[in-house]
Amino acid sequence: MLPRVLLCGNVEFALDELKHLLGGIADVVTLSSSTRTEFFASFEPGGPYEGTAAIFRRNVSAQRIGVFDRALIMGLPASVRWIAHSGVGYDQIDLEACRERGEYLSIGVSNTPGGESTATVALYLIISCLRHYSAAQRHLLSPELGWRDPQYNYAARAHGPQGRTLAILGLGTIGLSLAHYARPLGMRIVYHSRSKKGADEVPPWCEYVDSLEGLLREADVLSVHVPLNNVTRGMLGEREVRMMKRGSVLVNTARGAVLDEEAVIRALKDGHLSAVGLDVYPNEPNINPRLLAFPQAVLLPHVGGETYDTLRAREIKAITNLKDFLIKGRGEDLVPELRS
Amino acid sequence: MLPRVLLCGNVEFALDELKHLLGGIADVVTLSSSTRTEFFASFEPGGPYEGTAAIFRRNVSAQRIGVFDRALIMGLPASVRWIAHSGVGYDQIDLEACRERGEYLSIGVSNTPGGESTATVALYLIISCLRHYSAAQRHLLSPELGWRDPQYNYAARAHGPQGRTLAILGLGTIGLSLAHYARPLGMRIVYHSRSKKGADEVPPWCEYVDSLEGLLREADVLSVHVPLNNVTRGMLGEREVRMMKRGSVLVNTARGAVLDEEAVIRALKDGHLSAVGLDVYPNEPNINPRLLAFPQAVLLPHVGGETYDTLRAREIKAITNLKDFLIKGRGEDLVPELRS
Repeated sequence: MLPRVLLCGNVEFALDELKHLLGGIADVVTLSSSTRTEFFASFEPGGPYEGTAAIFRRNVSAQRIGVFDRALIMGLPASVRWIAHSGVGYDQIDLEACRERGEYLSIGVSNTPGGESTATVALYLIISCLRHYSAAQRHLLSPELGWRDPQYNYAARAHGPQGRTLAILGLGTIGLSLAHYARPLGMRIVYHSRSKKGADEVPPWCEYVDSLEGLLREADVLSVHVPLNNVTRGMLGEREVRMMKRGSVLVNTARGAVLDEEAVIRALKDGHLSAVGLDVYPNEPNINPRLLAFPQAVLLPHVGGETYDTLRAREIKAITNLKDFLIKGRGEDLVPELRS
Repeated sequence: MLPRVLLCGNVEFALDELKHLLGGIADVVTLSSSTRTEFFASFEPGGPYEGTAAIFRRNVSAQRIGVFDRALIMGLPASVRWIAHSGVGYDQIDLEACRERGEYLSIGVSNTPGGESTATVALYLIISCLRHYSAAQRHLLSPELGWRDPQYNYAARAHGPQGRTLAILGLGTIGLSLAHYARPLGMRIVYHSRSKKGADEVPPWCEYVDSLEGLLREADVLSVHVPLNNVTRGMLGEREVRMMKRGSVLVNTARGAVLDEEAVIRALKDGHLSAVGLDVYPNEPNINPRLLAFPQAVLLPHVGGETYDTLRAREIKAITNLKDFLIKGRGEDLVPELRS
């Protein structure tokens, strides 16, 4: 009998690759449970998930069985040894619980690194914020305004990226792609991350700032690219927002809970931030309706990775991690926290 | 008595520079006429514009005295010898008429070249079109949808710029800036213009295509950067749009009349074009209401050059052209059509 792979979230764009890569190696089953109780019951002998060795996971599965928190991980049968997450951020998986299952029973977790599509949305939000394009688009579509809002002085508010400082918080694959995209627009690039990158990892025009406070003070535009974890949750609160220059711009395409949204709303209201660009929110798919009222808030419904090309590439990568786990015992993209 | 300079359109952002550059050199007067008849009358002896040697011009003046067409140019007194236009495109000035005033009486026309801000809006429109961000923003703001439109499959429609071909029509300052902005996003760059640029003018990865048809057939995204003149008016009609690939994207930040808007609407309707990005329209500030109905049409109210930095830089450049004309007889940015 082939080891079983459970798809928690459908493979949508790489169905052929799923067959090619796992054909003859695994028996693929689809998530059929609509509650967590049903989910656990389905692993029992004779159940559809019996003998599951590995799980393919997308965040969308949380709508049915919840996130992969401690309770879910600890409730998985001992047969499950790998979770291949399809996505960059794996904050919905409790890595501590995965590790605690013991040396031989621990669960490996892989993600699908790669940052082009999220870096592209960050670039878009930066341009839109600096130049107030979202406001212009809103006014154009508004029946009572029709062309421009005469009260909203675009020319006086709008600035080009040219000559301004882009501060990147977290210089992983996404942050580094963004640096390469923004540099030709004439932006100065500074970054802060847990440690300074080596000269072989970043171009010489990417300047390291050794404290978060220093980064915030330099920023004309701050773009957030840290993963969500216990250290980064609420990392940017009232104090941090106020360390930024008056009139600066804040862009978040990482995770909503990294920011204190109330602090951001206050700063938009009193003009401390001239604009914000958000693709992520603390309680998706809900959005704070007060944010919608600001024309200088550029808001997207978490579409940073939402392209055919990216989703397909992620699916193929996650399936490849599953295959490597099944054949070699380990997927290439094992997350850094579980490497030892 | 100092020669008079007439401001047709206010200097808004460079008032200090206006004083510094023209102080002691010219007597600056502001447009006070609200009709063309009043305008002509004001040049008469004793009138406020009497003895005007040069005109500072912005397109906004057309709202009061109309564009600088043949009738306006021919009606100017012989004292007027220079028009310093503040802006890149000078399609509202009849150059033939300026030249026909005779060898010694001809009027010089300068513009303010420079393409960063318009290239930035083109980049923004390209990303928005490929990734359907404008649609996502519209849906998020729409009370009945709230997050995403479940009918609008972003993932299946959205594509990254990475690996796609950007076809630039007209490789002047703006087109070339756009090439430099789009290249790091992984786009292949091809261009067509009246003549192939020299190896010292363009980077080697900017490929020349020797016909408009060839360019249209290569394009995943076509971005228009030609000036409006007798050759380019209506240059992209039904036939040309249909030469583009099915599902391709069209972006226009040049002038509305270069495109046949009806052909574009038909192509959006039947999906031949997957999205369009427009900052310019044939009859601004009016906009065809049928365009507003397409979520895949990204529409801006001609804000390509609308930044504080750009407008200020243009004003300073136009004033400098006036100063050079008054002192040396010729402004540096004399338009190419009037060079001989």
